[in-house]
Amino acid sequence: MEFKISKDLIQELEQLIQNKDDKQLEVLLNDLHHADIAEILDELDFDEATYIFKVLDSEMTAEILLELEDDLRENILKRLSAKEIAEELDELDTDDAADIIAELSQSKKEEVISELEDLEHAKDIVDLLRYDEDTAGGLMGKELVKVNENWTVLTCVKEMRAQAENVSRVHSIYVIDDEGRLKGRLSLKDLLTTSTKTQISDIYIKKVTSVNVDAEDVEVARIMQKYDLEAIPVVDEMGRLVGRITIDDIIDVIKDEADKDYQLAAGITQDVEANDSVLELTKARLPWLLMGMVIEIVASFVLKNNELAFQKYSTLIIFVPLLSATAGNIGVQASAIVVQGLANGTIKEFSRNYFSKEITVSMISGTIISLFLLLYHSVMYQQYQVGLAISISIIVVILFAATLGTLVPLFLHKNKIDPAIATGPFITTTNDVFGIILYFTIARLVLGY
Amino acid sequence: MEFKISKDLIQELEQLIQNKDDKQLEVLLNDLHHADIAEILDELDFDEATYIFKVLDSEMTAEILLELEDDLRENILKRLSAKEIAEELDELDTDDAADIIAELSQSKKEEVISELEDLEHAKDIVDLLRYDEDTAGGLMGKELVKVNENWTVLTCVKEMRAQAENVSRVHSIYVIDDEGRLKGRLSLKDLLTTSTKTQISDIYIKKVTSVNVDAEDVEVARIMQKYDLEAIPVVDEMGRLVGRITIDDIIDVIKDEADKDYQLAAGITQDVEANDSVLELTKARLPWLLMGMVIEIVASFVLKNNELAFQKYSTLIIFVPLLSATAGNIGVQASAIVVQGLANGTIKEFSRNYFSKEITVSMISGTIISLFLLLYHSVMYQQYQVGLAISISIIVVILFAATLGTLVPLFLHKNKIDPAIATGPFITTTNDVFGIILYFTIARLVLGY
Repeated sequence: MEFKISKDLIQELEQLIQNKDDKQLEVLLNDLHHADIAEILDELDFDEATYIFKVLDSEMTAEILLELEDDLRENILKRLSAKEIAEELDELDTDDAADIIAELSQSKKEEVISELEDLEHAKDIVDLLRYDEDTAGGLMGKELVKVNENWTVLTCVKEMRAQAENVSRVHSIYVIDDEGRLKGRLSLKDLLTTSTKTQISDIYIKKVTSVNVDAEDVEVARIMQKYDLEAIPVVDEMGRLVGRITIDDIIDVIKDEADKDYQLAAGITQDVEANDSVLELTKARLPWLLMGMVIEIVASFVLKNNELAFQKYSTLIIFVPLLSATAGNIGVQASAIVVQGLANGTIKEFSRNYFSKEITVSMISGTIISLFLLLYHSVMYQQYQVGLAISISIIVVILFAATLGTLVPLFLHKNKIDPAIATGPFITTTNDVFGIILYFTIARLVLGY
Repeated sequence: MEFKISKDLIQELEQLIQNKDDKQLEVLLNDLHHADIAEILDELDFDEATYIFKVLDSEMTAEILLELEDDLRENILKRLSAKEIAEELDELDTDDAADIIAELSQSKKEEVISELEDLEHAKDIVDLLRYDEDTAGGLMGKELVKVNENWTVLTCVKEMRAQAENVSRVHSIYVIDDEGRLKGRLSLKDLLTTSTKTQISDIYIKKVTSVNVDAEDVEVARIMQKYDLEAIPVVDEMGRLVGRITIDDIIDVIKDEADKDYQLAAGITQDVEANDSVLELTKARLPWLLMGMVIEIVASFVLKNNELAFQKYSTLIIFVPLLSATAGNIGVQASAIVVQGLANGTIKEFSRNYFSKEITVSMISGTIISLFLLLYHSVMYQQYQVGLAISISIIVVILFAATLGTLVPLFLHKNKIDPAIATGPFITTTNDVFGIILYFTIARLVLGY
């Protein structure tokens, strides 16, 4: 039921492009969904993609533009004149049009705006460009149906019919006062079953969840999910209705947020993807690698300073990797649970209850690992004192890593820094170094060297 | 605009529960959204929550039940009779009702089903229980509006009115044939603007994206996102329309999938949360820690076997943590990009292009780190041969880790195993061991001990 790209189709298209057989191209593509065509264009080279793009009509291409990979879109936009881009944008909802304009250079931006045909549409788009892309204002569109509380049902139905022409999917009818302030919403059913002379103020529902235009995108996502909304109205500082956000834009926010957390945990700074350039990929990864290197140079000092110890007790040094890895693993586990708890609201701030639970879990894991190592070392190397030092150390290091793993994300969150950083390489390498310091300190105490 | 729980409110509610002041409780809570009440109940203890639950009417409590934390819902369900649970379920959509029944014990399940009042509803729920929860069948609900292609517009409108009573949000009108097979969809606009005698088969839209009842939930999520759908029809093996999936259920799938990847990367096996028990948390974490320990014991053998080397060249051993950490970091970075590429479709299988890009990125990072270390070691320790061994090793280890990091997720994906495992502790510790083996092999070659 779903469309699948085949190699045959790609070859056929390439042949048609070579022959400049525009008619056959149209026949082949016009029946497809714009999302499928976007997928096809992503498989072709830039020239071929641009060729097809120019063959199709602007109603179709406008939608395709939204679905393309970033680099292909950038390339196609470069090959289009300001007038051609404006034609695309005239077909799009204001929020999508604003997103595309935001990708253009400053000079081209102004040119494109001046070429927009529908002035009302142009005004709305320009208005949207003011907002930060990570806020409700940056997500919202201007397409909505709004009615005045002082209208009668009759006026309302007439006005709605005109408004609805510009709105592809009507999610809700919003009610405003003379100042444009959001007062509530109207159910279509009530509107249709009430006498045409009734005033809107007598029938509208006064409860409506809205967000402020400055609200963060993740906050909007949380509210829409909590209240199971398919659209939410956006108001300005004075409570005036300025736009609406639909659920499809929120899905992107949810996915981006999850991707960002995962990337931070994996030690990637920017939002990169497999098809980005070598330079972008290196820029996103090298800083974390260098930071890890610098932190581990500290570890090398600690080892250097304890050289005599492991020349005397040779098995002391061979368990350093085990100790580091265990500290790293337990720290990341502890952080990940806190990060997810903060994201879904089960953790809000430091709680003694939760902390003691984490310490209990680590204590149990630590004791099991520690007893195993004590036994293993005694059997393998018969140096009971060293075995004791190792097994005490592992418990202490595990408890330390669990504490750091729990507290660091809470601290970051409190200071408005993304707590997911705490599951990344910075913390694991830091845990390494502290782990090694603790290890040799305890060994020194137990073995008395 | 959004409701916020206050300590005062919680205290007031606790007082009212103690005084058994049901009237005042209703007054206080009836104005709130069911999602907010669920949040409040999660803050109270089980007895208090159950008390409030019984005060509110079943239309409200049914919705609340869906929003509660798992353990509270389980506890409340235990305290309700089969008849009481059936009353809740009668208020819910079939998919939500089936989800709740699936949580009950086998005996209670049957009791509850026999108590359901609406037989049609009960039949639909029982039908849904057959499907695996990770498939389209497990996600879908039975509430939809469907019309026969052989009907006239007039019959259609009449039938629709009856059907729509059971459907809270009408996303689409589906068209079926006499066998119940999905043929297409109907636009409300066409329906309202056509003569009442017209046959549906003349006006319906033949293009409709559907999913098979056995489709995986993540596949459904991908399709709905790609085509920007707020609802999708589900068909059985014979193409018969059996249900519909709405976008709110898909958001849960997207979030769960992201959470799962993040947890696998953090070394947590089960879907645990901060408020789970110590036992559950330990069960989800200890296996990874033990596995890490066993792998690192291999590392201890490698170090033991090279004891003479680092007694002779003392700075050789002190860079082991740096080497391990760098290998781990680069491996996780490489895997994470592949895992996300597989998830969003930019990577589909092994591609020589992508692999050589990854190797280039690693080569650049490796060379920079390696040159720095060569310089650093020469200045600090003046053992140029050892410095050379270290810096050659770091490049080789980085290239090895990048290769493993790229290939392992692809291999897992090909064998239908979740590739996100490749960003977890198994790979980082394995990289550790291979890194150490490579390091001492290269050192032996360079230094000739």
